[in-house]
Amino acid sequence: MHLHRDLIVSTAVALLNEYGLADTTMRRVATTLSVAPGALYWHINNKQALIAAIADYIVGPVLDAPATDATELSRRLRQRLLAFRDGAEVVSAGLSQVDNPTWWRLVEHVEQSLAASVECAAVPESLRAAATALIHLTVGATTFEQSRGQLAAFAAAAPPAEPAEPADAALADAAEPATSELERAVAFIIRGLQSTTVEDYARK
Amino acid sequence: MHLHRDLIVSTAVALLNEYGLADTTMRRVATTLSVAPGALYWHINNKQALIAAIADYIVGPVLDAPATDATELSRRLRQRLLAFRDGAEVVSAGLSQVDNPTWWRLVEHVEQSLAASVECAAVPESLRAAATALIHLTVGATTFEQSRGQLAAFAAAAPPAEPAEPADAALADAAEPATSELERAVAFIIRGLQSTTVEDYARK
Repeated sequence: MHLHRDLIVSTAVALLNEYGLADTTMRRVATTLSVAPGALYWHINNKQALIAAIADYIVGPVLDAPATDATELSRRLRQRLLAFRDGAEVVSAGLSQVDNPTWWRLVEHVEQSLAASVECAAVPESLRAAATALIHLTVGATTFEQSRGQLAAFAAAAPPAEPAEPADAALADAAEPATSELERAVAFIIRGLQSTTVEDYARK
Repeated sequence: MHLHRDLIVSTAVALLNEYGLADTTMRRVATTLSVAPGALYWHINNKQALIAAIADYIVGPVLDAPATDATELSRRLRQRLLAFRDGAEVVSAGLSQVDNPTWWRLVEHVEQSLAASVECAAVPESLRAAATALIHLTVGATTFEQSRGQLAAFAAAAPPAEPAEPADAALADAAEPATSELERAVAFIIRGLQSTTVEDYARK
């Protein structure tokens, strides 16, 4: 088997979904691929680099899609985070790493979406602040939602004789309010940016 | 030694600051207190309940302070989260637990602050949505900030001959922009709520 970076990342993503972030270790990735841990380090330096690579994998499709309106972009990001176990936590940890290029690509993508969502041309500084706020809000809210969902599933799984359906049903029920809650939150940021823009415009 | 809940929680908080969230286990708390793990369970059911109790401990002083303006409240919450290792992550995990009373106390506290920060009377539904957004934003942004700071400290600690000062200085330098970044984000939510309110007001 030829060891390459994509194979390491896809293996790590599979382990993430099975074991969660804390137990997705470099050692476990190496064992799963039947290579010595040292063989990984040539491609990925350490656990932090692995987390950054998984975060890229999760966020990638959001960046590759054409820029859309900001509400839709937030919705897509949330969906990608929810599609992976501990997805919100991984992306938060990965994007927070200093000078992560994916962070800056995401900020620019959100800036474009926000610029298309407000009526007047926003000043660049406001646009940057609103884009950062939208990302922190989306990742923060989804971290709560995912943590709550995983805890509920864990609690439902605890009594051994219980069928699995109630937990799934509860998660499905919870999904809708969370979407609209996040959308309302994003709407505040867009309106806030809009009103900032209008004032800046009036000041000229 | 008489084992009681406050002692368990303060021991867990000390272990959190020393070892981080992943290594603050029920077993380690019991060992530190020189009791059998079973003795803890009478007071605190499991690790989830321990996380909720630590989150209460961190958020408590924010709730006990009189309601102030929303920007100041967000600033205080951020400061409390930053005062504990993995503080933002612990509070996110603790408050996300279904029907956590501290979550609802915090939502009400933020609602009061927001109501005092806007000019017109906001509709209760908008106030609730804006309060939720402010909490998710503050915790989400602080999770990024704390994760970045801890990674920077870790990276600075890696070369053994390096003095500790550069890392501390870098963290101190980073603190100021993060504050104003979060304040700008909160300002968008307040402006957004304000503009929602004005429209609702105009509609009457």
